[in-house]
Amino acid sequence: MSYKITKILNIQYPIIQGGMVWVSGWKLASAVSNAGGLGLIGAGSMYPEVLREHIQKCKNATDKPFGVNVPMLYPEIEKIMDIIVEENVKIVFTSAGNPKIWTSFLKDKGITVVHVVSSVKFALKAQEAGVDAIVCEGFEAGGHNGREESTTFTLIPMVKQAVSIPVIAAGGIATGRGMLAAMILGADGVQIGSRFAATHESSAHSNFKQTIIDVKDGDTYLTLKELAPVRLVKNSFYQQIQDLYQQNPTVKQLKDLLGRARAKNGIFEGDLENGELEIGQIAGLINEIKPAKDVLEEIIAEFNEVKTLIHSL
Amino acid sequence: MSYKITKILNIQYPIIQGGMVWVSGWKLASAVSNAGGLGLIGAGSMYPEVLREHIQKCKNATDKPFGVNVPMLYPEIEKIMDIIVEENVKIVFTSAGNPKIWTSFLKDKGITVVHVVSSVKFALKAQEAGVDAIVCEGFEAGGHNGREESTTFTLIPMVKQAVSIPVIAAGGIATGRGMLAAMILGADGVQIGSRFAATHESSAHSNFKQTIIDVKDGDTYLTLKELAPVRLVKNSFYQQIQDLYQQNPTVKQLKDLLGRARAKNGIFEGDLENGELEIGQIAGLINEIKPAKDVLEEIIAEFNEVKTLIHSL
Repeated sequence: MSYKITKILNIQYPIIQGGMVWVSGWKLASAVSNAGGLGLIGAGSMYPEVLREHIQKCKNATDKPFGVNVPMLYPEIEKIMDIIVEENVKIVFTSAGNPKIWTSFLKDKGITVVHVVSSVKFALKAQEAGVDAIVCEGFEAGGHNGREESTTFTLIPMVKQAVSIPVIAAGGIATGRGMLAAMILGADGVQIGSRFAATHESSAHSNFKQTIIDVKDGDTYLTLKELAPVRLVKNSFYQQIQDLYQQNPTVKQLKDLLGRARAKNGIFEGDLENGELEIGQIAGLINEIKPAKDVLEEIIAEFNEVKTLIHSL
Repeated sequence: MSYKITKILNIQYPIIQGGMVWVSGWKLASAVSNAGGLGLIGAGSMYPEVLREHIQKCKNATDKPFGVNVPMLYPEIEKIMDIIVEENVKIVFTSAGNPKIWTSFLKDKGITVVHVVSSVKFALKAQEAGVDAIVCEGFEAGGHNGREESTTFTLIPMVKQAVSIPVIAAGGIATGRGMLAAMILGADGVQIGSRFAATHESSAHSNFKQTIIDVKDGDTYLTLKELAPVRLVKNSFYQQIQDLYQQNPTVKQLKDLLGRARAKNGIFEGDLENGELEIGQIAGLINEIKPAKDVLEEIIAEFNEVKTLIHSL
């Protein structure tokens, strides 16, 4: 396949594996990159030296390009960025922050920069900041999400109309059909999260992987909007949030309930009751835990098969 | 085009114009039907005898099939159903209620029944009730909406996998690209609301039509979830709702603020400040008020054009 986004990222297929906290270490990233997509190491859940170790192991595990996802709220972001430069990482996805702060620093080092946005307004800001491409993430995505609540189906064409840089669709995509639909709406490529979280190479706890398989339509919800909106599974922790909402809580009360390490507890340690289970709506279509390579190949096969069926429409 | 849904409804194109309160009278419905889609009269905002008049005028204005959308919360629904039978309406779309109550009554009269759902669970219930097809409406749709908040991108493939009857996608669709993407995700046809509300034949106030043109990404929001979730434009009325939410309101307080006739005030009378402006997210892509026939032809032309471009993907 030959797309703008495969050229920019120097990959075979326009499929990016989302950089997910507690899920995307070097094993998953290198497996996806070796299969022809772009693997991302999720720095958000790693101490700086842990990230360095993952980058080094990823370099040993693949000759293909891979990247690092950096949430810009990361407290020691300067250390993270220094490690990325020292370790000669070629691609950085930035999220949850202002793209002006780090884009030129990274670009000056020859690093390709992609920024994650949830609205046309932020897409334009990212383009202005000089990023090479953007990820547009819709309301249906798992984990942290935008305040506009624009869905993938509406966000992609609106952003595509507004910007000239390549657009990667995220949120709700887990299959070849989803990939093709996103590209018809205007995407140059897709970023896939939940489906790659349910792979052998994902570092998530097996309980969490099984939850991705078990989750059905309506089992996730975007909540905690007063803090940072997050889509999570409706488990006991979610019910505690709902109960607290009945009492007209302050932001501090919500923060206290959230506490620390909920995502680690849920995703990495497998506490399905009290952990924060960040899973996207499309998990309702995910039925099997398998190797990342198989996932990628199935998506491409379905994408190509459905393309050939379109003339019958 | 030859699809399951065009055969069931006896129409040329698999495009249904949503039956919208204060928008979809006989003028819009007959214009869409004459252009080869399926026009729907929205009974929700009509007194029974007003509906009868619209049905009669629609029959005079088109020889093509058209239908009536009936929200099942309608207080005098028995009268509405009697009029539909007396006036020999061939197609009924039911929404906002249990499909078991009226489906067999209508089917016994030879009427084609389509039910609107927002989840896999309700899709299965509608199929069990014996409807001929379902509309699956995603979170991005304007107006009243499901509690699951499933988006079009995730809802369509999940429902398609679960049912054997035809699936019509709704929510976020306004263009030929959107139509093709929805069909790739598994839809047999599409229902389009906001874009048909911004036509010459729509009975909405010109202020409301202009608002559809003006609305951008992020300007609508799903709120009043304690009553019935509704997507509306963030105008002064919306701000009043948000202010009330700061005070931990009871359901009664929310109902009192909503009051009566807000949708009429906003959509039909053009009160942009205090009216309820039910518009979908995709309005960000709608740029011109034009005849319904032109809208339908543009959608089909773009659908066909994009189909031919797919081989370059």
